[in-house]
Amino acid sequence: MDPVAVIARKRDGHELTDAEIRWAVAAYTSGAFADVQMAALLMAIVLRGMSAAETASLESAMRASGTTADLTGLRRGGARLPTADKHSTGGVGDKITLPLAPLVAACGAAVPQLSGRALGHTGGTLDKLESIPGWRADVPMRAFRRQLEDVGAVVCAAGADLAPADRAMYALRDITGTVESIPLIAASIMSKKLAEGSEALVLDVKVGSGAFMTDAGSARELARTMVRLGTDAGVRTTALLTAMDTPLGRTVGNALEVAEAVEVLAGGGPPDVVELTVALAREMLATAGLDSADPAARLADGAAMDRWRRMISAQGGDPDAPLPAARHVDTVRAEPGAAGVVTRLDARAVGEAARILGAGRRGPGDRVQAGAGIEIHARPGERVAAGGRLLSLHTDAPERFAAAREALAGAIDIGPRGPAGVDAGAGGAGPLVLGRVT
Amino acid sequence: MDPVAVIARKRDGHELTDAEIRWAVAAYTSGAFADVQMAALLMAIVLRGMSAAETASLESAMRASGTTADLTGLRRGGARLPTADKHSTGGVGDKITLPLAPLVAACGAAVPQLSGRALGHTGGTLDKLESIPGWRADVPMRAFRRQLEDVGAVVCAAGADLAPADRAMYALRDITGTVESIPLIAASIMSKKLAEGSEALVLDVKVGSGAFMTDAGSARELARTMVRLGTDAGVRTTALLTAMDTPLGRTVGNALEVAEAVEVLAGGGPPDVVELTVALAREMLATAGLDSADPAARLADGAAMDRWRRMISAQGGDPDAPLPAARHVDTVRAEPGAAGVVTRLDARAVGEAARILGAGRRGPGDRVQAGAGIEIHARPGERVAAGGRLLSLHTDAPERFAAAREALAGAIDIGPRGPAGVDAGAGGAGPLVLGRVT
Repeated sequence: MDPVAVIARKRDGHELTDAEIRWAVAAYTSGAFADVQMAALLMAIVLRGMSAAETASLESAMRASGTTADLTGLRRGGARLPTADKHSTGGVGDKITLPLAPLVAACGAAVPQLSGRALGHTGGTLDKLESIPGWRADVPMRAFRRQLEDVGAVVCAAGADLAPADRAMYALRDITGTVESIPLIAASIMSKKLAEGSEALVLDVKVGSGAFMTDAGSARELARTMVRLGTDAGVRTTALLTAMDTPLGRTVGNALEVAEAVEVLAGGGPPDVVELTVALAREMLATAGLDSADPAARLADGAAMDRWRRMISAQGGDPDAPLPAARHVDTVRAEPGAAGVVTRLDARAVGEAARILGAGRRGPGDRVQAGAGIEIHARPGERVAAGGRLLSLHTDAPERFAAAREALAGAIDIGPRGPAGVDAGAGGAGPLVLGRVT
Repeated sequence: MDPVAVIARKRDGHELTDAEIRWAVAAYTSGAFADVQMAALLMAIVLRGMSAAETASLESAMRASGTTADLTGLRRGGARLPTADKHSTGGVGDKITLPLAPLVAACGAAVPQLSGRALGHTGGTLDKLESIPGWRADVPMRAFRRQLEDVGAVVCAAGADLAPADRAMYALRDITGTVESIPLIAASIMSKKLAEGSEALVLDVKVGSGAFMTDAGSARELARTMVRLGTDAGVRTTALLTAMDTPLGRTVGNALEVAEAVEVLAGGGPPDVVELTVALAREMLATAGLDSADPAARLADGAAMDRWRRMISAQGGDPDAPLPAARHVDTVRAEPGAAGVVTRLDARAVGEAARILGAGRRGPGDRVQAGAGIEIHARPGERVAAGGRLLSLHTDAPERFAAAREALAGAIDIGPRGPAGVDAGAGGAGPLVLGRVT
């Protein structure tokens, strides 16, 4: 096969064959299909699209570029241990994995989650957990299986051998304007998630200003594409479409979000975080065949908290150690004459401001600050007094406050009453779960 | 500016600004816009197109990446010497530059032609002239101007400083499936031709099986795009659309084509080569403001031959030296029972067979054979006896005969009478000049 001929076929709107796609991915991994050729092919895919069959071939070829795990043999107390994983397409304040993984473990399924780090305006689960003193993201394969059987949950870093073709192609897409393509996004996510070896998978596809997909139609198409890829690969896969116009909960930032997750595990925490955690837990347990489990009860009776402590300890973390705090705090207040109800709190702007404060990265080599981020004092639907507190900005680098405030310009609307359909005082901003795709 | 933002704007169908295009080309030349990013941008341009304004910005930016010549000060005998150049989009057996440049010089204009080498199935003017013993393609700038004033014609190689951004982008397009785009083709050709400094330019845009543009609509659009680029840059520019379904003349290959050009300069030669040479000469002379010149008379009275001899000698060539001949000749004959009239002789297949025999290159580092190529004994409209000669294949590498014959499979049709509209015996295959664009 010839790279230019394959590129030209996609350029001219033809459907590539399974053999062409597998050859291109393998040749790219070996160097016979050059970076510049893959960049051109990716742009042709962005503009010409891919059929379901092409997307499946791409996912499968990228998955096959690395090692794949088989977790069907996990056992506990002589019985087979079902596995269930979750993947979120990324939101602001999305700390759901932190309470969710131990909660599902407490309900009897094992959660093998390979996670990522902060990217753009969205945070990274590993960055959040690394704010816990002693906690290590790297878990060798033997320890990974043992922790799954003992504790029931592992959240750790993916090894270099997980879908390496996807890693190389994603790095290329990031600098060539070829990220925005549903088939490419779906194949990229699923090549990694299906390589993990979980028997069940629930996708949390975010929709809204703070999400990668800002409209419901695209989010639903992405969800359908991913569910089909999972199902066709023999993994029971479902998706929830969830709102991401407003940050989740009251915190954005690494240690701040860990603290909020612990509140949820202790039976408290913001209602939206609890609601989404329980909804995703029910979905994961049902998909794993554990329909009778009661995740809300496992939050209430401390079983989930117990699993959290064991999960953190198993990876070297001290669940009782105080979390790092930023050295400087700046408070964003309502205008002196602007009493009322918050009608909008833009998730993307809050995420971008948190990144600037140090919760995320400016470039690939950048380090995150454990204590940096944003506390939200008034969520949509909540009252604020004239001159009252809206947000607290946390950072070790106070020279960044000005840029963070600039990123927040226009991000908060205050009106005489709450947004339509919102019960002022409930702390919500409309329905959280917008749909389900199976 | 940011490469990804520029790529994304074109990907999403927006018109790029002049500043964006100039920045991208300059940043690509300096390395700040990476090869992979340019590959993605080029594919987005292929699929989204470019407006006339964008095409003009691209041409101008690529031209400005190198040095540009100013030939308005050329003089002969105290009078201003007008300049006129020609560019062909490439055909099979297209040796027209060889008789044309000295013919136009004999009529009073100077022809400053920077030419190229064989590419794919089409021959290169420099490769053809290099079959003349002693002839050198490299001419320093001082000698270039002096030869233009003394002889009136220079055909030579472009220096490395002629539109270097175009050279880099063309090399990238060649391996990324992004050659097929009228704006990119037009900007590439014109960035080089306008940098040469000629005051008048005639474009020979080929249409047909042996041309880059196989349909008349695309060829006309390419011609219009290039004429507009030239006119807007202040160069008087016109284009002829000419047929390229059948090879031009009776020879394809380097020394074989030089010999045929010399026949034309001596007042003979194939009627189609004479017709196109005179048509292009009239167009160049009219465009240069020399409407009263009579090129047919200058072929007949030997003035053009005189210029040819001086042009070859000025670059070290010996116009009287015998031309190299291939060591092996293989004759392709009609089937024993297939007497009739040739109705089709496919230009692309003949070009490809000539390349295989050694007239062109298989890769960038390949050397051409001066004597290799194909003689055509029966052109469309001409009679052939049962078992009679159709083609003679010439090469120094007889092991290539089989592959050349394979490339010619299905390239020749013989019927009981000539194709519609063709006067059998005239040696033609329909009208040669299909249109004119100004």
